[in-house]
Amino acid sequence: MDLQKYIDDSKKIVESTFTKYIDKNKDLYPKLKESMTYSFMAGGKRLRPALMFLCYELSGKDKKDIAAAACSIEMIHSYSLIHDDLPAMDDDDLRRGKPTNHKVFGEGMAILAGDALLTDAFNLFLSINNKAKNENKIKALQILSLRAGSVGMVGGQAVDLEYENFNLKIKSKKKMEKILNYIHQHKTADMIMASCEIGSILSGDIENQKNISLFAQKIGLCFQIVDDILDVIADKKKLGKSGSDSKNKKLTFVSLYGLQKAKDIADKVYKEAFFALKKIKGKREKLDLLKEMTEFILRRDF
Amino acid sequence: MDLQKYIDDSKKIVESTFTKYIDKNKDLYPKLKESMTYSFMAGGKRLRPALMFLCYELSGKDKKDIAAAACSIEMIHSYSLIHDDLPAMDDDDLRRGKPTNHKVFGEGMAILAGDALLTDAFNLFLSINNKAKNENKIKALQILSLRAGSVGMVGGQAVDLEYENFNLKIKSKKKMEKILNYIHQHKTADMIMASCEIGSILSGDIENQKNISLFAQKIGLCFQIVDDILDVIADKKKLGKSGSDSKNKKLTFVSLYGLQKAKDIADKVYKEAFFALKKIKGKREKLDLLKEMTEFILRRDF
Repeated sequence: MDLQKYIDDSKKIVESTFTKYIDKNKDLYPKLKESMTYSFMAGGKRLRPALMFLCYELSGKDKKDIAAAACSIEMIHSYSLIHDDLPAMDDDDLRRGKPTNHKVFGEGMAILAGDALLTDAFNLFLSINNKAKNENKIKALQILSLRAGSVGMVGGQAVDLEYENFNLKIKSKKKMEKILNYIHQHKTADMIMASCEIGSILSGDIENQKNISLFAQKIGLCFQIVDDILDVIADKKKLGKSGSDSKNKKLTFVSLYGLQKAKDIADKVYKEAFFALKKIKGKREKLDLLKEMTEFILRRDF
Repeated sequence: MDLQKYIDDSKKIVESTFTKYIDKNKDLYPKLKESMTYSFMAGGKRLRPALMFLCYELSGKDKKDIAAAACSIEMIHSYSLIHDDLPAMDDDDLRRGKPTNHKVFGEGMAILAGDALLTDAFNLFLSINNKAKNENKIKALQILSLRAGSVGMVGGQAVDLEYENFNLKIKSKKKMEKILNYIHQHKTADMIMASCEIGSILSGDIENQKNISLFAQKIGLCFQIVDDILDVIADKKKLGKSGSDSKNKKLTFVSLYGLQKAKDIADKVYKEAFFALKKIKGKREKLDLLKEMTEFILRRDF
């Protein structure tokens, strides 16, 4: 199976799981449903679910077992984008080439749609009907809430927000590096780690877990560095967002190190991801896909 | 044991559980921690945890077993108040006599503190170390995420937001009544139901669950009607908030039915709560406290 087909299949599973979930409850207020659906269905490659599926299928199991868990990680990703785009945060008008949620539904409804996607993600997760032990489901949920919470993604966002309009002159470069690593680890890498870790935990695999975590951390970090680079150099239309990082004078790998050094760091972390990947065991076909996937995620053109 | 002591004990357990949880992770960004703690520790009687504890202890078990679950319901309550006070929502400057979270930490940080309290609530919940079966923990978490999510509390908030500045003239009264019931059921009653239901589920009690749900729904509804009444007539200083319902021309029992009829409805639902309570079985001492608690919650002076 080639990677594109795997990604397409994953996307279909995730989107039909969401549609089924959101259509199920007739009591859901239509405008809230519309706002949640607008952002969830706004496109995106669904890379986190695909990673979760691959890490699950290393064990030989079938990804459909954990459709609910994969959809829930994407719901959390989706909520984080809605809140991140708000005027009080990044203040973005466009996301994937479309008006952001608050531009369409208003700020209040956008906040609530984010809150609902986050809460419902846990609700949906709990409905997974694979044969994972309850113990493993609980362990996977602990990882999910840890990586998404105050010392995970939200923590990364908070520090990111604080260091808008940062001024390099008044801080030591060393301190800035520490802050930047905190932001990228938590804001981006944590949820990519959660995706891979949860796939592995739900498969009942214990042997791989440490290496899966390390591998996922590396692709998460590299992904964010690449994003920083693209934010500066990519064709804005092609990326479908408005390059708000430089507008907000955010702390990024490019603003701290300059473009060339940022590219060098991306390259280094890219190699570390592959080094970690080599230690992961499982079905050969799925390992190959995971390798291709890593290349796909990290080698975006610049 | 008298009720006041029970409430004080519950409050102590919940607050020390929160402090332990939030202090545990050294990696938590200080300003985010401060913002979360500011709102969580802003006072409040912790009625939801006390209700959860009482419903748990009906079975003869000890409330300390489920401290984490009780704390998590209060964290969700706390997050909902932070987001509800935001300029894009109710736009309140004061909460319990203190400046609201966004007034102190800024809107961006307030949104994130809410997101973090919500996510961490699930994380903390999963750490309960009572001897409840994993199956019951999962069932309790399903209830928590359902009652807090898109067809629960967030749904109620969304409809509440939509019917600000409502105009009775352009809608039928029947439709307005339906909307008002939706708001009050979901915005307020759902989390009170969750509190009682989770206490009961974690105790392993099956027999009581239907009656506990009904009882909790009634106190939840009555609580909100009383709140609507107090928002209009109570001494604003005493309540410690600024009476934003009438400022925002919200749909409430008072704005829809007038003060006297709202009081009559409160009285009717109050009686229904007691009727439901009579069918609940368990330790006599705890049933008496639950009865006193119901009187305490619903008979605020007006």
